[in-house]
This record gives sequence, C-alpha cells and structure tokens, in this order.
Amino acid sequence: MAWQSPKGTRDFFPADLAALQHIEKAWRTASINAGFDEIEGPMFEHLDLYTVKSGEGIVNELFSFRRSGGDTDYALRPEFTPTLARMAAAKGRSLSIPTKWFGIPNHFRAERPQRGRLREFKQWNVDMLGIDSPSADAEVIATAIRALASLGLTPDDVVVRISHRDVVAKMLLDGGLKEDQLQTALGLLDKREKMSRDIFVEKAKEANIDPVVFSSFDSETNTSHQDLETLQAELSAWGIAQWCKFDFSIVRGLAYYTGVVFEIHESGGNERAIAGGGRYDGLVEMFGGPSIPAVGFGMGDVVLSLVLRDKGLLGDGNDLLPSPDVFVISAGGEGDAAIAETVSLLLDSNLHARRSYKATKNVGKLLTEAAKSKAKYAIILGEELSRGEYVVKNLETKDQVTLLRAELIEHLKS
Amino acid sequence: MAWQSPKGTRDFFPADLAALQHIEKAWRTASINAGFDEIEGPMFEHLDLYTVKSGEGIVNELFSFRRSGGDTDYALRPEFTPTLARMAAAKGRSLSIPTKWFGIPNHFRAERPQRGRLREFKQWNVDMLGIDSPSADAEVIATAIRALASLGLTPDDVVVRISHRDVVAKMLLDGGLKEDQLQTALGLLDKREKMSRDIFVEKAKEANIDPVVFSSFDSETNTSHQDLETLQAELSAWGIAQWCKFDFSIVRGLAYYTGVVFEIHESGGNERAIAGGGRYDGLVEMFGGPSIPAVGFGMGDVVLSLVLRDKGLLGDGNDLLPSPDVFVISAGGEGDAAIAETVSLLLDSNLHARRSYKATKNVGKLLTEAAKSKAKYAIILGEELSRGEYVVKNLETKDQVTLLRAELIEHLKS
Repeated sequence: MAWQSPKGTRDFFPADLAALQHIEKAWRTASINAGFDEIEGPMFEHLDLYTVKSGEGIVNELFSFRRSGGDTDYALRPEFTPTLARMAAAKGRSLSIPTKWFGIPNHFRAERPQRGRLREFKQWNVDMLGIDSPSADAEVIATAIRALASLGLTPDDVVVRISHRDVVAKMLLDGGLKEDQLQTALGLLDKREKMSRDIFVEKAKEANIDPVVFSSFDSETNTSHQDLETLQAELSAWGIAQWCKFDFSIVRGLAYYTGVVFEIHESGGNERAIAGGGRYDGLVEMFGGPSIPAVGFGMGDVVLSLVLRDKGLLGDGNDLLPSPDVFVISAGGEGDAAIAETVSLLLDSNLHARRSYKATKNVGKLLTEAAKSKAKYAIILGEELSRGEYVVKNLETKDQVTLLRAELIEHLKS
Repeated sequence: MAWQSPKGTRDFFPADLAALQHIEKAWRTASINAGFDEIEGPMFEHLDLYTVKSGEGIVNELFSFRRSGGDTDYALRPEFTPTLARMAAAKGRSLSIPTKWFGIPNHFRAERPQRGRLREFKQWNVDMLGIDSPSADAEVIATAIRALASLGLTPDDVVVRISHRDVVAKMLLDGGLKEDQLQTALGLLDKREKMSRDIFVEKAKEANIDPVVFSSFDSETNTSHQDLETLQAELSAWGIAQWCKFDFSIVRGLAYYTGVVFEIHESGGNERAIAGGGRYDGLVEMFGGPSIPAVGFGMGDVVLSLVLRDKGLLGDGNDLLPSPDVFVISAGGEGDAAIAETVSLLLDSNLHARRSYKATKNVGKLLTEAAKSKAKYAIILGEELSRGEYVVKNLETKDQVTLLRAELIEHLKS
C-alpha cells in the first residue's frame, strides 16, 4: 500500500520547504521593516466565527468537526481576518492605535483542488487597525508591493487592481439593481472573470437579476470617490502609483468588506489573484470589540509561487538549502573515533558541521562527498591526530593546511 | 458576546509569539548546524495513518473529520513520526543514507487540557534514518541537548532518561509476565509515574496483570544491553554523558518504538516530559518504503516554556520584539506630507522604519513616542525640509545632526 498526503495538501521535502521559506522571508522582512508585529492564532476556531460574518462563499468551503463525544463545532481556519478581529476585540480599549499586525498562518478550504487553489496553503496577512484614512490603505498596499519587489517582480509583472465597494454599489444601483439584491450581485460580480459571458448571464437570471445592471462594468468608467482621489495621492507618496490601477470589476467575495477593496494580479491575467484585501471597518466591533476602522490583505503562497516560477524567479529550492561550513571525514585509524568529538567541537562554536557516515577510508571518495555537500572546508581526521593535528582543506581553493586544535576554529571562521 | 479561542488553543499576541520564536530559533539553529534538513507535511492526514501504527494512546486523542459530502476520514496530526515515515517511504530507494530531517510542525490532541498539555502545540521533531547504531541515537540526543543548552539550561536543570524496550521487556518477562500481555504492560508502565501506587496496582489487576511483574522497576537495576554500553561510549564522545542516565522505568507510550527509548525531564521531576523519542526501525517499511533503521524525538513548546519560565530563562517576550532602526515624526508644515515618502526611502534601504500617526506637532511628545518604540534614531521632518535637510536625533546619546538627503542612509547605517 502506498500512503499519500491528503488530496490538495503538500509534502514539503527540504528543497520544497526552502523555496516556501524564501517567500516567507520576503513577507516577514517587508512586514517587520514596515513596523508590523507578528501574531498567530489557533489552527481551528469555533465554527460560529465564520458562519456569522464571512458570508456563504467561505462557509461552504469549511472543514468542520467536533471532538469525539463533544458538542462544540470547530472549523479549520479558512482565512485569518475573523481570528484577527476576535484578537483585536479581546484587547478592547487597551488596543494600540494604530495596531499593525501581520501573520503567516496556514489556511484550509474544503473545495476541489485546482491550479492556484489547494486545500491547505500558507497566507501572508497584513492588517492595520485604527486609521480611518486612505493613507493606511496605501501603506498596506505598499507593504505588499515591497515584498513582491524583493522577490524580483516589477510593475510589468503584476498589477494592483483597486476598487471601492461604494462605487461598485452605486454603479449597480444606477444600472437598475434593487437594493436588496446588492450582496447577491456583488457575489456574482466577484466570480465574473472566472466564467464565460453566457454562463454569467445565466447565473444572473437564475438569481433574478437583469444582466443589464452589470453593463457599466464592461467599459472604462469615470465614476470616482473622494477616498480614491486621496488614495491616488497616497500611492504616489509611497512611490507605488505605477504598480496600481483603478478597476471597478474588483469587488472581493467576503461579506465583511467596506470601502476600498483591491486584488493583486499577474499582469497578463494568467493566474488567480496573488492577493486580495480591503477595508473592513465594522468587523472588530462585530466580535465584541471597540468600533475601529481596519484595512488589510491576504497573499497566499500557491499562486505567488506559480507566478514566480513562470517568470524564472523561483527555482526548485535546491540552491536555497543551507550549506555547511565544514565537512568532517576520517582517513581511518584514530580518525573514526574522533569524528563525534570533532563535530561537537565545531558545533560548540556555532559552525554548521556535517560528517561522512560512510565506512570507506578512500579519502578521494570522501572529499567528493564533502564537495557535494557544498561545504566550504573539509577536515580530514588521520594519522596527524596522534600529534594533535588536523588537516583542513579549503574545498573552493583546494588549499590544504595542518592545524593544531587551538587554531582550528579561528581558521574556519576567517 | 465575547469570542474566545477554542479550549486548549492559544492566541499569540506579538510578545507571546516572540517568546515562542525564541525557542523555535534555538531548535532550528541546533538542527541546521548539526546537518539536519527541514521538512514539513500536511496539517491533517488520512485517519488510517494513525489508526494503523501508533497504538490506542494516540488514536483516542484524535480530532477527526470528513469533508462535507465526502467519504474520506482525516485527522489533525497528533504527532509527526507517521508523516515522516510516509514521506521517507515515498522516496523509496532514492532516499539518502543517512537521511537527517527535522521539522517544527503544529500538533493536535483532543484530550482534556492540563498543565503542560494543550490541544494545539508546536513540536520540534528530529529524525535520523538509515544508521543502525547507537551512534545515531547519541547524535539525535546531542542535538536535543545542544538546543536546550543554547536556551540556558544545564545538566543541573534537565536529565535525559534513557531506556531500551528489549531490556524493559526482559525485566517484565523475567518477573513472570506473559508474552501476550507485553504491549498492555508497556502501556501501564509508561503511565506509572502519573498515578499513585494504589491506582497503578488497581489498573494492573484490571488488565489481569499481577503487579509483582513490575517490582524490579522499583530498585536500581544492573540489567544492561550491548546497545546501551555502546551508547554510553557515544554519549561520552559527544560530550553529553553528564546530561544522561539510564532509567528502565521509561518505555514511551507509542506502539512503534523498538530498541532505545528516552525522555528528557526537568531534574526535579516537576513537569511532564520535555521531550520523548527512540528507535522505530520498522516504521518506514510499514508505510511501504524500504526496510530502514530510524531514531528520533519530539520536543513540544508547552512543557519547555514552563521549565524555562520557572528557571528565569524566558520572559514575557516583550524584550524579544524587533526594535526599529528609525522612527519618523513630523514637526508640522511640510513634514506631514513628507512622512510616507521618507519612510519609503528608509524601507528601500532595508531599514526597519516606524512613524508616528499622531496629529500633534508637539515634538517633545513625539520624541517620547519614538523612544518608547526603542528606535535607535528619530528623524524629525520640519521646516529644514524646505532646504532639503533632515534633522536626525540619536535617541541613545541624544546627539542631533542636520543632514542632506544623500547623507541620510549612510548616517543611519553607521
């Protein structure tokens, strides 16, 4: 029987994990440098946390469960915003203004796996609470852009498509939509790019919405909003205006968004969204906290990895694995017994030390193994040990020296 | 309504996460320096992966679930060894000998939360596959010790209690235990320290085992084993003999262990085990891989944090938060409009830059905020901007200089 990882999940062997950690490092550095503090929450939450506020789009995709014999419903977290809002609410009036938090949690969606969409993924979440101004929207977008730029992407590769829930709502209502159909129409609009025009028209009719209400989204529109004019100026101040454009076909699927919403896409439109976010001014209060404005985004690892690989910016991870400072081999005799003690000495000095476990005493073969490990130096333990001496070979220059034990660490660290 | 994290799980606010990451860094550094490669697997696995091989102790503690409408049973991972064995098996004959892997996954147990035992926790796993010798057992134990030592613990604080399944089995069988009661007796012995003598005797009788078979575990025993004699020499070679003692009351609860088993405890016996591990030579083959010897351990964050805090080696995390290089404030006038652009300039140079969001122009108050952020420097944006100049204050020495834009970054990085 061949055992496999569950459908839509991944095994990360060392090179796979190194590639993921390369992305995580870019996310973490961009966040910390920009003054965001890292947080984490539970991998699962009370099911209610999602059924109450996120809207049906998320609820249908939950993995939910109970403890055997228990009566409390839990769900693996499908997104981070409800956890963050709950944590902010728990702080109550002691919450700093602003609060700038980020996290890199795992998330889970019980949907059919497809390109760019898995059942388990990592997502970078960046949120800023307490600032009711487009300057905060611009700051979180700038943080996203900075991470993408550090990974090698340019304004030619990706675009931030920015919209505003109020503008979209006005366009729909001006087109003849009834007020009570707004949430349904927003949900349809969010999925419009993922289906053919015929299917979209059919879905609209099924929902009792005249497809003509969406016609203003087919052409460039001059509709604007005070928030967006201010945001435009802020994006310029942050030096990222060339990465952004206004695009009112963006609405975001989640029910809790208010005001500005945005998505980051590969410029050619070749993949699902790299990131999505917006303002959610009411959410912290809904979870029992103070009334506080908020804006944030989530960026998953799956689509981003596809985009980076497609552009030649992410390899298979093998070149990202840590390489040893020293590789220890034995030429036989006293060497064998000295390996563990020598490796210990190196580790005590915070060096990255590997060793051969092969039985062979063929120094040529062992040096080949040392070179394959990409170590900078090899230590050859041989008959010189009887004189208290260690043979050290620089694997790059091929220079070889014989050193006393007391000289060893300084030589290897220089 | 007050929303809370599920029972037995934790919210990690920034300082909480900084404390956890301090431990994770010690684990990761000890692993990488010792030549282990990091891996990760799915947060949940097929339920069968655990029901087949881990024994009842684990199976009773699983959070299991299905996808709505699906027919596949999954379980949140309660431990990492089955995932690791499955991943090793998937590599088949291409698996390197030895394979040295580590990971820092989350794990989940659906049991009653108690001191040292939560429903979600982080666990450091270190495993070495392919070396059928006590030298590998000693190497993984030495890696555990190195991480604990780097966190400030000494041989006075913790002890590695080492045992051997064969020795324990022989002691039980010599005491009169029937062969077919061995697994049950091992399970009882594993839990013996956690209950009173009376309850232990009662549990033994319930399982139809004469309590007298356990009497040899009450006194120091001279029973030994070739593996343990070799292991003793290897522990000395690794320089960690003073951290270790043989103790045949250690058996480990999991069914898959063979040979050497060990636990790391706080020396005073004040907490649950800090870590536990041992040899599991048959497991990779059981999951469809090659027949390969293996040894490893798991160390959770919960008990370790309790021990470190108790010994004054881990604070509340506030002193571990990253501190900014620069804090930007505006003294009014042109300053306000220049904040975003100035922060951008600093971030472009990979500096950690924060800013005030306060409306006040009281520079004294703003400098107090800058000092509270623990930034090294403050940049005061004021009327000097009209001459293209920036006021930079060293918040430690209180020295203040006025610099041109082109001089700014070099000064801040020096």
